[in-house]
Amino acid sequence: MPKHTFNPVTLIRKKRDGIALQETEIKNLIDAYTSDALPDYQMSAFLMASFLNGLNDNEAAALTKSMLHSGIVLDLSDIPGVKVDKHSTGGVGDKLSLILAPIVASCGVPVPMISGRGLGHTGGTLDKLESIPGFTVDITLDRYKEILKAENMVLAGQTEEIAPADKRLYSLRDVTATVESIPLIAGSIMSKKLAEGIDALVLDVKFGSGAFMKKKEDALRLAETLVGIGEQFGKETIAYLTNMEQPLGYAVGNWLEVKESIDGLRGEGPADVMQITHLLAGTMIYLGKKASTVEEGIEKSKGAVADGSAFAKWVDIVRAHNGDTTVIEDPTRYPPASTIEPVKAKRSGYITEMDAFAMGMISLELGAGRRTKEDDVDPSAGLVLHKKVGDSIEENETLATLHTNNETIISECKDDMLKAITLSDNQPALHKQITHRVDRNGIHDYKS
Amino acid sequence: MPKHTFNPVTLIRKKRDGIALQETEIKNLIDAYTSDALPDYQMSAFLMASFLNGLNDNEAAALTKSMLHSGIVLDLSDIPGVKVDKHSTGGVGDKLSLILAPIVASCGVPVPMISGRGLGHTGGTLDKLESIPGFTVDITLDRYKEILKAENMVLAGQTEEIAPADKRLYSLRDVTATVESIPLIAGSIMSKKLAEGIDALVLDVKFGSGAFMKKKEDALRLAETLVGIGEQFGKETIAYLTNMEQPLGYAVGNWLEVKESIDGLRGEGPADVMQITHLLAGTMIYLGKKASTVEEGIEKSKGAVADGSAFAKWVDIVRAHNGDTTVIEDPTRYPPASTIEPVKAKRSGYITEMDAFAMGMISLELGAGRRTKEDDVDPSAGLVLHKKVGDSIEENETLATLHTNNETIISECKDDMLKAITLSDNQPALHKQITHRVDRNGIHDYKS
Repeated sequence: MPKHTFNPVTLIRKKRDGIALQETEIKNLIDAYTSDALPDYQMSAFLMASFLNGLNDNEAAALTKSMLHSGIVLDLSDIPGVKVDKHSTGGVGDKLSLILAPIVASCGVPVPMISGRGLGHTGGTLDKLESIPGFTVDITLDRYKEILKAENMVLAGQTEEIAPADKRLYSLRDVTATVESIPLIAGSIMSKKLAEGIDALVLDVKFGSGAFMKKKEDALRLAETLVGIGEQFGKETIAYLTNMEQPLGYAVGNWLEVKESIDGLRGEGPADVMQITHLLAGTMIYLGKKASTVEEGIEKSKGAVADGSAFAKWVDIVRAHNGDTTVIEDPTRYPPASTIEPVKAKRSGYITEMDAFAMGMISLELGAGRRTKEDDVDPSAGLVLHKKVGDSIEENETLATLHTNNETIISECKDDMLKAITLSDNQPALHKQITHRVDRNGIHDYKS
Repeated sequence: MPKHTFNPVTLIRKKRDGIALQETEIKNLIDAYTSDALPDYQMSAFLMASFLNGLNDNEAAALTKSMLHSGIVLDLSDIPGVKVDKHSTGGVGDKLSLILAPIVASCGVPVPMISGRGLGHTGGTLDKLESIPGFTVDITLDRYKEILKAENMVLAGQTEEIAPADKRLYSLRDVTATVESIPLIAGSIMSKKLAEGIDALVLDVKFGSGAFMKKKEDALRLAETLVGIGEQFGKETIAYLTNMEQPLGYAVGNWLEVKESIDGLRGEGPADVMQITHLLAGTMIYLGKKASTVEEGIEKSKGAVADGSAFAKWVDIVRAHNGDTTVIEDPTRYPPASTIEPVKAKRSGYITEMDAFAMGMISLELGAGRRTKEDDVDPSAGLVLHKKVGDSIEENETLATLHTNNETIISECKDDMLKAITLSDNQPALHKQITHRVDRNGIHDYKS
């Protein structure tokens, strides 16, 4: 290791013994790993020690910084305005980006958004966008800045040039049981987001069966770590904790969610979707200095939907990405899946539970998701709920509709849907949708 | 991995989460690693998780078993008698094996002894044996059994065929900061000892500055783990905890220690050396069924020294290994180091401390030890103390003599010796030499 005069064993031992590493020590490890001077077996020992002994806020920030600078960091300083993005830790039916980005852009705040693909039970924004015929997310850096300048918004996929160290580390974590570490997750998210060239960030940190973090306490710690890193980089960061016990909205699946997001932009979105959307959008508008409070931002967000400017922005954006705007203007023109079948209630009662994780997996089974990174997704597949937790239903009434081009699995998926929905004689108490706000001043209970 | 249908990530995750693994799960991991089906980066993540979350007695035994069966296990069943060996966790000036093995063999108990080389501040039995001109430890398996049959004792080096998985794991632990784990150390020691084909084992577990385990509590836990594994394999195992704050005896260095062991076999050994030697030898004689109690074994051990039979056995053994017996019969014939210089006291007083670790490092510096596995050792180099902790000394009286063939480092080594020795006006309380006995019934305070 000619360039590195550090001793990696000493650094692994420090972390093993619970001693915090200096920024330069973390930088040395990541740089050596990226340049192939540090072998996988030393990095995996370091990752496991970090998993078990934790990384403090300074270490997480140093890790983020090293991964961030392993690739290009976009410079958007020639684009006027405070650039704000939003990141969600992922959920089932989470189409919020598709609604809030046009809202925020139409309110004058530039939104440079780099998104990922879905894996397992969660969908990805890129897959949803690509369900729109012609829509392309693979654009050059020049085109990226061009669209952002022209439209106040751009949507793209992560390239090889952004945080390559994160990509390598993530692959190693995947095969060494070191994925579910809050500082490692936070470093991975933030290194990619900071590479976008943003000035501020809003985070939707989800908890519950359909989220990556099952427990609220873990989600809170992740939110704190993410906000801590963002603030260390001088980017104002506000996170909200939101519930992911049941799918968000009614639609799960790529085009089905685009369709529901169009409803949202036209003022006809589901209440749960629109509550979080307006909160996140309002916070982005506030961070983007186009509102003096989050509340004022929320009012502007609602106004942009009501006056049609958000929807108009969405049509412009789809056109800028070479997408077919006719299906946006009239979603009934979209080719439906070959098999569309209802799932009917076996009894009457109140819906007390709709397992978001199970429904994410059913949507995957229907064709909307990926088991491995190499799988293709079916744009028209998925499911649409007719009811949500707290609603009452009669025997034989439709609970949900399944959409698929693979008829052979429909009967199994119907059974799985019935298992994922719990009916009871008593009306359940509803979960709070948004439980906390986390910002530079700490954790606050959220009062809607 | 065609032969292995297990999922290594699941097993790493279990250990990461503090869940005990089944014997077959540990076997699968070790087998896959030995057969190159499991990459280093997964094993190192498992090692770090094991280091931090520990391995229970069953897991440590399963690890030992898998490593043991990764190579050959000697079958000594055609040799009559209860075969007993002794293992020391290593110290400075620890020549006990050279004295006790001939004692025990001369009392009728077969001693099949496979030893290692020194590294860092501790010496190794093999290096000491090889300081005897002609003495060879590299013998075939057939010759090993032949000598054992003829002499009731044999001394050899570890071969590639014994516990190869341990060798690979040890190399990986060395570069991933996972060496100092009690169950991993115990598995490494016991897999090699059990491969010798022994029936019972005595352990000398050292603590203090010159030992691998600095803290008595860690040494006690290691002793418990070693005894636990031995008993799980049906081999009666007795461990003693002994103090390694100052060097054992007066001599440190290969030939210098052989010479002191000859003194011991001739009834002229230092008191500290002979106390532990007779205890360990007596315990081996007891375990070998040639005494009905350890106390009776100790008496037999003392008798074998007094009547000359132990020394005669040593001469026979040296001859069997092609060693030059003339230097054993008359150690003054041995070629001395080119530079032999005294270290003199700067003041008068009582010796309150002789740092064993520092003296081990000085001996290495003088030429007796190895910094890396590839280094050669100088047989005649080392140091001889003239005084020990508790003794009084006058100003300018000789504290120790340094022996080296590298004149250039003598002045630095003298300074280091003076730093390693603490003098005071008050006579210090002496450390207890042997503090505990650990056996299948648990931990007992040792009363000498």
